[in-house]
Amino acid sequence: MSKEKVVLAYSGGLDTSIIIPWLKENYDFEIIACCVNVGQEDDMTEVKKKAMLAGASKIYTEDVTDNFVDEFVFDALKANAVYEGKYLLGTAIARPIIAKTLVEVAHKEGAKYIAHGCTGKGNDQVRIETVIASIDPTIQIIAPWRIWDIKSREDAIQYAEERNIPLTVTREKIYSRDQNLLHISHEGGHVEDPKNQPNMKELLMMTKTLQEAKDEPEIVEIEFFKGKPIKVNGKEMSGKEILSTLNKIGGDHGVGVIDLLENRMVGMKSRGVYETPGGTILWYAHSELERLVLEKDVQHYKAQIANKYAELVYNGMWYSGLKMAFDGFIDKTQETVSGKVKVQLYKGNILSAGMESPYAIYNDEISSFGFSELFDHHDAEGFIKLVSLPFKIKAHCLGKEYLDKTFKSKEA
Amino acid sequence: MSKEKVVLAYSGGLDTSIIIPWLKENYDFEIIACCVNVGQEDDMTEVKKKAMLAGASKIYTEDVTDNFVDEFVFDALKANAVYEGKYLLGTAIARPIIAKTLVEVAHKEGAKYIAHGCTGKGNDQVRIETVIASIDPTIQIIAPWRIWDIKSREDAIQYAEERNIPLTVTREKIYSRDQNLLHISHEGGHVEDPKNQPNMKELLMMTKTLQEAKDEPEIVEIEFFKGKPIKVNGKEMSGKEILSTLNKIGGDHGVGVIDLLENRMVGMKSRGVYETPGGTILWYAHSELERLVLEKDVQHYKAQIANKYAELVYNGMWYSGLKMAFDGFIDKTQETVSGKVKVQLYKGNILSAGMESPYAIYNDEISSFGFSELFDHHDAEGFIKLVSLPFKIKAHCLGKEYLDKTFKSKEA
Amino acid sequence: MSKEKVVLAYSGGLDTSIIIPWLKENYDFEIIACCVNVGQEDDMTEVKKKAMLAGASKIYTEDVTDNFVDEFVFDALKANAVYEGKYLLGTAIARPIIAKTLVEVAHKEGAKYIAHGCTGKGNDQVRIETVIASIDPTIQIIAPWRIWDIKSREDAIQYAEERNIPLTVTREKIYSRDQNLLHISHEGGHVEDPKNQPNMKELLMMTKTLQEAKDEPEIVEIEFFKGKPIKVNGKEMSGKEILSTLNKIGGDHGVGVIDLLENRMVGMKSRGVYETPGGTILWYAHSELERLVLEKDVQHYKAQIANKYAELVYNGMWYSGLKMAFDGFIDKTQETVSGKVKVQLYKGNILSAGMESPYAIYNDEISSFGFSELFDHHDAEGFIKLVSLPFKIKAHCLGKEYLDKTFKSKEA
Amino acid sequence: MSKEKVVLAYSGGLDTSIIIPWLKENYDFEIIACCVNVGQEDDMTEVKKKAMLAGASKIYTEDVTDNFVDEFVFDALKANAVYEGKYLLGTAIARPIIAKTLVEVAHKEGAKYIAHGCTGKGNDQVRIETVIASIDPTIQIIAPWRIWDIKSREDAIQYAEERNIPLTVTREKIYSRDQNLLHISHEGGHVEDPKNQPNMKELLMMTKTLQEAKDEPEIVEIEFFKGKPIKVNGKEMSGKEILSTLNKIGGDHGVGVIDLLENRMVGMKSRGVYETPGGTILWYAHSELERLVLEKDVQHYKAQIANKYAELVYNGMWYSGLKMAFDGFIDKTQETVSGKVKVQLYKGNILSAGMESPYAIYNDEISSFGFSELFDHHDAEGFIKLVSLPFKIKAHCLGKEYLDKTFKSKEA
Repeated sequence: MSKEKVVLAYSGGLDTSIIIPWLKENYDFEIIACCVNVGQEDDMTEVKKKAMLAGASKIYTEDVTDNFVDEFVFDALKANAVYEGKYLLGTAIARPIIAKTLVEVAHKEGAKYIAHGCTGKGNDQVRIETVIASIDPTIQIIAPWRIWDIKSREDAIQYAEERNIPLTVTREKIYSRDQNLLHISHEGGHVEDPKNQPNMKELLMMTKTLQEAKDEPEIVEIEFFKGKPIKVNGKEMSGKEILSTLNKIGGDHGVGVIDLLENRMVGMKSRGVYETPGGTILWYAHSELERLVLEKDVQHYKAQIANKYAELVYNGMWYSGLKMAFDGFIDKTQETVSGKVKVQLYKGNILSAGMESPYAIYNDEISSFGFSELFDHHDAEGFIKLVSLPFKIKAHCLGKEYLDKTFKSKEA
Repeated sequence: MSKEKVVLAYSGGLDTSIIIPWLKENYDFEIIACCVNVGQEDDMTEVKKKAMLAGASKIYTEDVTDNFVDEFVFDALKANAVYEGKYLLGTAIARPIIAKTLVEVAHKEGAKYIAHGCTGKGNDQVRIETVIASIDPTIQIIAPWRIWDIKSREDAIQYAEERNIPLTVTREKIYSRDQNLLHISHEGGHVEDPKNQPNMKELLMMTKTLQEAKDEPEIVEIEFFKGKPIKVNGKEMSGKEILSTLNKIGGDHGVGVIDLLENRMVGMKSRGVYETPGGTILWYAHSELERLVLEKDVQHYKAQIANKYAELVYNGMWYSGLKMAFDGFIDKTQETVSGKVKVQLYKGNILSAGMESPYAIYNDEISSFGFSELFDHHDAEGFIKLVSLPFKIKAHCLGKEYLDKTFKSKEA
Repeated sequence: MSKEKVVLAYSGGLDTSIIIPWLKENYDFEIIACCVNVGQEDDMTEVKKKAMLAGASKIYTEDVTDNFVDEFVFDALKANAVYEGKYLLGTAIARPIIAKTLVEVAHKEGAKYIAHGCTGKGNDQVRIETVIASIDPTIQIIAPWRIWDIKSREDAIQYAEERNIPLTVTREKIYSRDQNLLHISHEGGHVEDPKNQPNMKELLMMTKTLQEAKDEPEIVEIEFFKGKPIKVNGKEMSGKEILSTLNKIGGDHGVGVIDLLENRMVGMKSRGVYETPGGTILWYAHSELERLVLEKDVQHYKAQIANKYAELVYNGMWYSGLKMAFDGFIDKTQETVSGKVKVQLYKGNILSAGMESPYAIYNDEISSFGFSELFDHHDAEGFIKLVSLPFKIKAHCLGKEYLDKTFKSKEA
Repeated sequence: MSKEKVVLAYSGGLDTSIIIPWLKENYDFEIIACCVNVGQEDDMTEVKKKAMLAGASKIYTEDVTDNFVDEFVFDALKANAVYEGKYLLGTAIARPIIAKTLVEVAHKEGAKYIAHGCTGKGNDQVRIETVIASIDPTIQIIAPWRIWDIKSREDAIQYAEERNIPLTVTREKIYSRDQNLLHISHEGGHVEDPKNQPNMKELLMMTKTLQEAKDEPEIVEIEFFKGKPIKVNGKEMSGKEILSTLNKIGGDHGVGVIDLLENRMVGMKSRGVYETPGGTILWYAHSELERLVLEKDVQHYKAQIANKYAELVYNGMWYSGLKMAFDGFIDKTQETVSGKVKVQLYKGNILSAGMESPYAIYNDEISSFGFSELFDHHDAEGFIKLVSLPFKIKAHCLGKEYLDKTFKSKEA
């Protein structure tokens, strides 16, 4: 009779490598490693070799980068989802597609267990497990970092060495990082203390520091169709090519680095530095285009939904009914979000360098001082009289005492 | 019997100068000019002289800058009010105190009329008139730009010349500007067409362009007490001094320039360039400090209120009941917003350079990988199980058809 | 050469009847009367006769009741749109289809003008004119009540008598009413003063008073498919039949009468009594079914959108981009809103009498005290520990002073 | 050396009675029972006797009813907090004061542990524990229902009988109930299945069924001062007296019974029947008064906050920063919520029977058809032109294709 199988979310790093022997020792499972490629720059041949050496019986390296960009990143882009005013959700957006891929591999292999290397304090455990629960509630989760006695990097290295797991890491690794085509995050070390300014020179991997960024400004043109980018500088590209191209250009100009003290899902604050050069350019350009084509009410309400949408994505609620209903709202708003946006990049700054759309509802004749058949200066008088009416009624009804209390100068 | 009096909001510029003879010709009023000083850099002696030469019988030049900063700017700062994600409301915040001062002068003079030089397409007419209506609904408004036949700058100059009004302006003035201690706005000319990138070198007055900004980064420390700034670089200052100081420092580093295609109150879009160097530093530092001391729920809900608050201020609703109730919410949240924030300025960028507060609810022990008595990794399991429960129930109740429809790969 | 044509929104009542001679006297137009039938109980033959006698050259009586119910009423039902917690928007929902029909007739007739009989203080003028502006911004509006000197019912009757317009009204008419298949509204007379309790016996037309309502309770079953009602008591019916049937049943039980002091769009409060017997049953049953099938987050956010949606509809923004984007959200949520709801009617009350749905995500096993494989009582501990964590961190970081201030008994 | 002490939240019922021997057997604690009296109708002498017989060393019966009504119920009333459109939060509002009292007793006794009898599926465990964590994060919680093997009522009775705990209960008890001065809740039995209509005759304890309710309507007048009720029918009363009086009157008229399928905090739906006769009258009257005195914007935004406030209270977040900041908002709005409201009660219905306030901002002159100096019918034209402007601009900019797509009749 064959052993039960477990699918392990495998990265090739120390944290997930030691899970392989640990699972064998504690569960007697057959271990199917699965490294989901969402654009991180790891050598997949190397990753495969490591997994097998550590004791996996099989390794999948699924490249889902195209799907990641087209379905996941661009959904968040259309929503202009930004968590707490800064974070473009690079890690959070990747988790659902990783979890979904793990379930697909589990189904293919007939495995009833999925194991992952997320710690018990972070958001990722939630994001991974809610998606698995959504797709197949019968799958059992194994989260070793919530179970075992390994409490530190040192413990982990010792554990690996005792079992002859080959390590390419050194004891000095300081930062905890996560990478995909949209971003790299950096946590830990000196970053943790909000008293410190992050040492960007040491941290950054995709992006130049502001001082090292190019000294010449550069203009990039992005074309959108119904909210999705389709061309860069006039050239049609796949989503993956667009993001790669803009990562390179943005990285050269030091664009898209943020430093955030954020509120985690699980009741605590944490601090991280995020590099998202290409994503930052896309989010900026998309939101500029929306200013040109969306009605005020739509633009304002969509901004409110964007906050809630970002919260859902941050919290791992990608497949919640609410997120999907929001997509229904957003898709309606994106019907006219087509056009070209030029941005100028320089020393970390993104500047608007001109935009146009066949669906622009801006008309410089109307807002300028000149004449327009749609608008008459006299109309404003009636408008203001009605807008002022509640104030007049209130002053009229509540009288002098209220007025004195509210408006008398404090110095008087 | 003496003539009726009108108080005219007077700036010294062409637009309000020609109103003086126009009022005399059309109403036979005694004209009391009133130039409310909110920190604009005009020579008040010159302004006075012009008003009298144009035919005013009296001129007030009320300096309310201190009050403007302490009561108005800092209320908006505590709210983190930002309109449409970019605009710090420099013009909008100044309008209520200007209108309030006009009413006070009207009461002192026994005037039943207030005249202003706002056009019939802009927001300022609304902002001025709603505040006047709130304080004294019996005052009558005269808005010549909604009445007369003068339709352009050329018409206005001709009108002035025919009446020998001394002009310091030339026919070539292109941009419409508004200045106070918080900001300068620029509208008109090439800025109007969203296809154009603004020529910052030509526009900017308080701020250096990014290219001309200092080549060396600079760190500034701001100390807040209950949401209000009280010190810069360790030195206690008045609100006005703080804003002036930060305007100078920020201006040197090219900080706080935005380019915005905005939705006006009165149903149209318009585009402007705004310089707010000191304000931008304050808003950034204040919001960073809030990240350190506010509970997540408070921070997220306050962000939603900030949007609505900004809309109210933009629309001239400074004295609305809703704005005042929001202040009740905000003041509660600011009780712990005290502490020091360091920011680094460089080429238009503001970077976090360390912060601390006695009310920080961030504890690096808790969020880091180490041990904490408040938190146990095992707790996360129960948490995630309950968070996942609705997804499991849904999958369980709706069954295979729903799951297939929602999760099957599109390519499959 | 033929005269210009104007399409007049015509009801057959006094207010619109006198507009016909007034338009002829003041504009020399050919007048096309158009009475849009949305289920009001007027005799259309009579209405036609009156229009011709008053001087119209042609009269359309378009019956759009089916469309009104299926497209307009049911959109608002799916949204659970309720204005200010009480008003089911009976008048507001009818205005867009009336305005749209007027434009269609204008296009058919080649008319460039539309006239209506709404007063200058109400919401209806806004609702009618914004829809016309949305569909054809070139059409000119004529709103006699904002122009002429007729200020009262007495003036109007005199005006009619001087021109031999036949009147079926008497001078004593007290209330201003609006009727369609969804509701009847009553304003004016003693209703206006909030100190008075409305005299329901005198006011109500579709609904029995509570005292006169049937003494026996009655159960009705409504079946919904994707948020729309399709059957009553097991019988398939058109939307119009469903609403008519429920109006009769609900009316007999005194259901669906509200008394509301509401905030009008144009800056003032007003008070009305509304009868909506069938609509009230539908809204109640639909929202009960949503409780059974919607996820918590969806249900809560949809409630927030419902408020804003109702505001938009109340304000005449039926064809705004925001309303249409909300429909995108709502349609997503309605995919599982199918099932049967029984309600019991008795003396103005609607009680839940049982419901079921194939998409129910309620499982009495889970919420009851018995065992469930999806849920373990122990999980709650970890959940609560994480939910309590922010409170613990706050107490830990802020310490005794904060705790004493917040929690010490006031009497101590 | 003395034993450690535990404070047990004690009700006198079966569930908490068996916790006493269980704690002794499993922890060897000295047990301090504490029955917090929030207006439930239990005989406290009997409760004391039971606790001592079961093995407690001491029993506190703290009567906090006055404080419960004045501070807790009336805070929720000022907020108009209603969960999911129906539930007045009777149980949820009582939990924080119970938990706070438990901590006070623990501090007085030097106890480091608090035990409670809430199950692992409900909301109450969360509500109790978060408040304890807020006030004293060092206190350890013991929740036997999440620990022991007792899984049902039968198990519990057997456990009690084996230990000679005197029981006044019988095996047939079907419903799980919670009572305080604000309400009684009923869960379990036939109520659990949403297919069933609740048997009100069997369930209700404070309220008559609709059929049994008085046949004569009755009018009650309530006077509010800054949002709090101070008089009933002209007689000044304490909060507790007001609520008791209205419970009696409302109960006689069958007012305030709801049947709710609700979303619990912990990820599942459950169904309950709630009786809140007096509270329902107060909530209704208070919200009617707000319609008379609040500005539209305040009223609408407060409704949105009310939903979120109710969610916080439901979830046990009474002492969260957000709830306290909301109180800052609400208190501002209540400054003018003073006046008298008459309501008529009849067969479960509450009808408005007239209200007045010195702060009314309703003026029947303004909203009626007569003349007003504050308002001119002509003003409406300019207002509507500006309100329609975005629609006109959109139609103008997007042109025929957009218009056809949006407005063409579906049948055409």
